[in-house]
Parts: sequence; C-alpha cells; structure tokens
Amino acid sequence: MSWLETELREQPEALACLLERQAASARTAARLFQRSDLRYLLIASRGSSSNVARYAQYLLGRAHRVPVMFATPSLYTIYGQPPRLDGALVIGISQSGASPDVVAVLAEAREQGRPTLALTNDVASPLAQTAEAVLPLEAGREQAVAATKTYVNSLGAVALLFAEMGNDATAREELARMPEALARQIELSLAETPSLEEYRDAVGLTVVARGVNYGTGFEIALKIRELSGLVTEAYSPADLMHGPIAAIQPGWPVVVVAPSGPARPSVEEIVPPLRARGARLVAVSDVRAVLRRAQTKLVLAPGVPEWLSPLTAVVPGQVAAMRLTRLRGLDLDSPVGLRKVTLTR
Amino acid sequence: MSWLETELREQPEALACLLERQAASARTAARLFQRSDLRYLLIASRGSSSNVARYAQYLLGRAHRVPVMFATPSLYTIYGQPPRLDGALVIGISQSGASPDVVAVLAEAREQGRPTLALTNDVASPLAQTAEAVLPLEAGREQAVAATKTYVNSLGAVALLFAEMGNDATAREELARMPEALARQIELSLAETPSLEEYRDAVGLTVVARGVNYGTGFEIALKIRELSGLVTEAYSPADLMHGPIAAIQPGWPVVVVAPSGPARPSVEEIVPPLRARGARLVAVSDVRAVLRRAQTKLVLAPGVPEWLSPLTAVVPGQVAAMRLTRLRGLDLDSPVGLRKVTLTR
Repeated sequence: MSWLETELREQPEALACLLERQAASARTAARLFQRSDLRYLLIASRGSSSNVARYAQYLLGRAHRVPVMFATPSLYTIYGQPPRLDGALVIGISQSGASPDVVAVLAEAREQGRPTLALTNDVASPLAQTAEAVLPLEAGREQAVAATKTYVNSLGAVALLFAEMGNDATAREELARMPEALARQIELSLAETPSLEEYRDAVGLTVVARGVNYGTGFEIALKIRELSGLVTEAYSPADLMHGPIAAIQPGWPVVVVAPSGPARPSVEEIVPPLRARGARLVAVSDVRAVLRRAQTKLVLAPGVPEWLSPLTAVVPGQVAAMRLTRLRGLDLDSPVGLRKVTLTR
Repeated sequence: MSWLETELREQPEALACLLERQAASARTAARLFQRSDLRYLLIASRGSSSNVARYAQYLLGRAHRVPVMFATPSLYTIYGQPPRLDGALVIGISQSGASPDVVAVLAEAREQGRPTLALTNDVASPLAQTAEAVLPLEAGREQAVAATKTYVNSLGAVALLFAEMGNDATAREELARMPEALARQIELSLAETPSLEEYRDAVGLTVVARGVNYGTGFEIALKIRELSGLVTEAYSPADLMHGPIAAIQPGWPVVVVAPSGPARPSVEEIVPPLRARGARLVAVSDVRAVLRRAQTKLVLAPGVPEWLSPLTAVVPGQVAAMRLTRLRGLDLDSPVGLRKVTLTR
C-alpha cells in the first residue's frame, strides 16, 4: 500500500491522539484569545495549512466573531516593511514548522510584543521555537508528500481551540466523536467512490464551496492537483459568478461541496448556471437532493455537525485524488517534482 | 472598434479625470485613516475589485504599515454572525456599487459604529448610500462587460488615498504623471504585443506575481479568462511552490509579472523550476534580463515607480486578453454568459 493510502487510513487514530494528548495545551493556548487588547487574528501559512487557515477564518469568525486575516509574508521578507500588529494575535500553521516566510511573520510579531501561537507537527522546528505557545499536531510521522493526517489534525487543532475558547461542553463532546465519524467516512469513501474512469482524460477541474467548507474546497483541489497533476482551482459560488465562470466549458468537471448547513442553499445556487454551461457535476454531500442533481456522487456520512464537517468532507476528495492519480498511472508517494518540506521566503 | 478596446484606450483620460476631480474627496477620506482606534482595514469586494483590494493590501501594508484584511461576506449574509469590527476601517470597492454582499458588510460596519468608505463608479448606488464617505471613481460609463478603466481608476483611487494619507508631495507628483505613463504603455502594448498565434490551442495558463503586483497577476488572469474562456489562475511564486506547481505540464503557458522593484528577484526564482517542467514562459517586465529568459515578451515602458507599476503592468495583460479572444473567434463585448453587473449574496 502507498504511504498516502496508509496515512489516509491513519487519520482517525491521529485525530484521537491529538484530542487526548493536547486538550490541556489547547486550554492554555485559548487563554491568549482572552487578552483585552485583542482585535483580530493574523494567520501565516502556505499550502494545505492555508486551507486550515480558511477553516479558522470561518469557524472563529462565526461563532466567536473574531476577524481573521492572512499574512502577506513578502511584506516581512522581501520589502522589510511589516505592518504594525497592535491588536493582533499571530498564529503560524505549518506541518513542518520550517518555512522561513511563516517563521518571519511570527518573529516580527514577537519583536512587536504581540502574542504568538504555532500549530505544528514538529515541536523542535524553528516555528515552534519562535512562538510563545505551541499546539503540537500529534499526527505522527507523515511520509507521503501530500498531507492527509497532518491536514485533518490541523483542522482538529483549530476545532479544539474553538471548543476551549468558548469553554463549551457540547462542542467538546461533538469533537470527541469525530475520530469515529472520520473512520466511518473513510470506510464509506473507500467503498463507494466510483472509479472516476470517465474523468481519465480531464485536463482539470473546478471545486466550489463556501463558509466553513470554503477551505475544504481548496484542499480537495490541492490534493487532486498535487497527486494527479490536473489543473484544479477552487472558488466560492459568488466569486465564480463574478467573471471566472466564463471558463467553464461543456464537459469541464465541477465538484460542488455542499454538506448540510446554512451554506448549502447558497452553494446549490451555482448548479443551474453550471448545468447551462454543460459542466459535469460531482457532488460531495450528505443531502440526497444535492446528490441527485450530480452525475457523480461522493457521499458524506450523515450526523456530523456543520462546524466539524470539514474534518470529514475532505475525505471523498482525498480518495478521489488517489483514484485519479492511479488512472493517470502516477506514483501517489512521489508527485512529480514536489518535496515534502518546501522552504520559501 | 469594440467597447472593450475603446475603453482600454480611454484609461489615461479616465485616470486624469479621477486625479483632477477627486483629490479633495481623497483628502477627506484619508482623515478616516487617522482615527486613533484604527488597527486594520477590512475590504469587501468581488471580481476585479478584489484585485484592487490586493493592491491596497500591499501598498498600504507596505508604506503605511496598515494591515489589510478581506471580508468574508457569507458570515454576514449566510450565517448572520458577522465578526466584531472594533479597530476596523471598512472599505467597499465595487464599480457598480450594487452587489448585495459587499453592501451587507458596510451596513454591518455602520451598525457597529465603525467608519466606512466606498470606492465606486456610481455615487447613487446602494454602496455609496450605505458608506459614510465616498470616493467616486470618475471612470465614466463603462459598457464592456470586462472592466478596464474602472479597474485602473480603482487602483488610482487607492494610490490617491495613499498619497493623501501620507500627505506626500513626491507621491502626488509621481501619481500625477501616471496618465501620461499609462498612455505610453497602451501605445507600446498595442504596437508591440505579438499575435499570440502560438497560444491559439492553449487550454489555460498560469500567472505568477508578487508584492504590489500580486493583484496585477490576478487581474491579468481574470481578464484573459472572462474574455477568452481560457482556464486561468494566479499564484505568488511561494504559493505555487507549495504544491500547485505539480500541474504545470510541458507546454503550459506561464505569465511571469516582474517589473523592476524589490519583488522582482523573488518572482524570477520561479523561472528555473518552470523551465524544468517545460512551461512556455511569457514575461511582463521592463527589465531586459527578465524578458530575455521568456519565449514571449510583453514589454513594460520604463520609469514607473514600483508602487504605481500596477497601473501600467496590467495593460499588456489587457491587450493579450484581446488578442487571445480574437484568436478564439469570440466577441470582446459579450463574454459568453457574463453580465456587467453581478449580484451575489
């Protein structure tokens, strides 16, 4: 079995590890959010971790009403003119904790006397050493170049922070049930995802998602892209309507990520214009009405609360990425020309 | 002549109009930035206006060191749980001023007692009526679906705010010379842009840019996409390296936007890995060494200060979009299935 598939199957266990071992660190880290001078969060990240940042933006933005901003590392590393960060809590998300641009943002924040938090799988990394507080991801060693369990555990770390920030017993219980829900989803997706043979000759595809699953859309697109080399992209339905939909030609595959929840009707509104353009629709959903409208159905197991749905909604995307990669005869563990740790400034 | 080409040629005049007529409004609006409780800017926008927001993020982030965040309209319109905005100055950018999601963000900001500013071409629009201060874009009527002069004037409005915020005489003078520089650039690009015949069968392309021109990369990609229907995308070099480069296959066109300035060497670092993958390189630059490395050269006129380079660097992209659209036999003024004003929630 490839490392990728092995690690994909290890996700529930890795998540359970995080929840068991790091509840106390999450409680400590959550105290940073209580500072009276806190106005917003600034997150520095790259790649899959940026998709986790998108989850944080909607999850924390929503229920705790904290605005979340993404860092612009070039202001720190290229221009040497970092913004003034008063009011900010600065969070670095990086599985390796090694990328110099992410570290530079946290180093500047400390210089300016702002609180900093690292979410990383390597507690000895430069990022962990730079941050005031660390929430270890506990994903264990990840060998495959494309992140799976470090991605889900990064989402889990954000969800844990969320539950601890609100000191919310219901949220804690819902989160505690997620390793089991994730195991169920992985089994379901491995058993039920079609071969995708009809997409063998696709050049690329578009993923549409919104709200707490906006980041899921980007992560599914990234996973398929890294592994299969297809040209993939992700949009919110509103952003797609403002011009980019012009490139959706007959036969172009569009994945619509629409689990139950408040964002679902708004994501579904994109279906008629996509149909009018002759797109081939793939649905990721637990809602029968949504699945019925798609040519290809990637079924989500029911019963996951919307705020936690990104932890399971990514799984059919991971499995689809594996299938498409095999169809194209590529190596799951060595995507062409990629390395596990990418160092950028 | 198409409306698109007519309006593209009107850009210098439209920019001159803005600079002449709105210096006083910009001075008034700039006072909003002096509030002692201001910690960051929050910008709401869609489509081309989001590319203007990216310019503001780097321009204001850089020299005035103001952090800039983008709004997440679904928190306001879908979830009904908008973030707390203390510390924010909230800016809406919308050529039509009509999109309900952009208006919703400003309405919430006023509700929360925060200062608001609208950049819009329609002073009678819902957005203008919702905002406390308005900076009219003065682009005149724009008929083509794809924005050209409203885009450049939105950049001009941000540049004007920048100069007035700093009460910066040099910046004012440099900006005052831009209508002429823009006219020179348009003439140069119309005369020297190659036919692009060799890209007739391209399925899509990727644009790479960074720093103040990060938004230029997105705008060039959007313009080509809206008009020609090609699948286009934009990345910073660092984000492309963190996985998405896997989809760059032999022959895939990559446009590298690299005007003189601090970001240029970092953008150029992407050239060797792109070459290794067999990409066809297109350069947008005023630097001979950069142009020499590309198969297709889109020349920028020299002498434009880096902070203003987005106003001219977009032009070769607009002209390339026109050429590609004609090669594909499409109508410049009616991109398939798009409308001038898009209303999204």
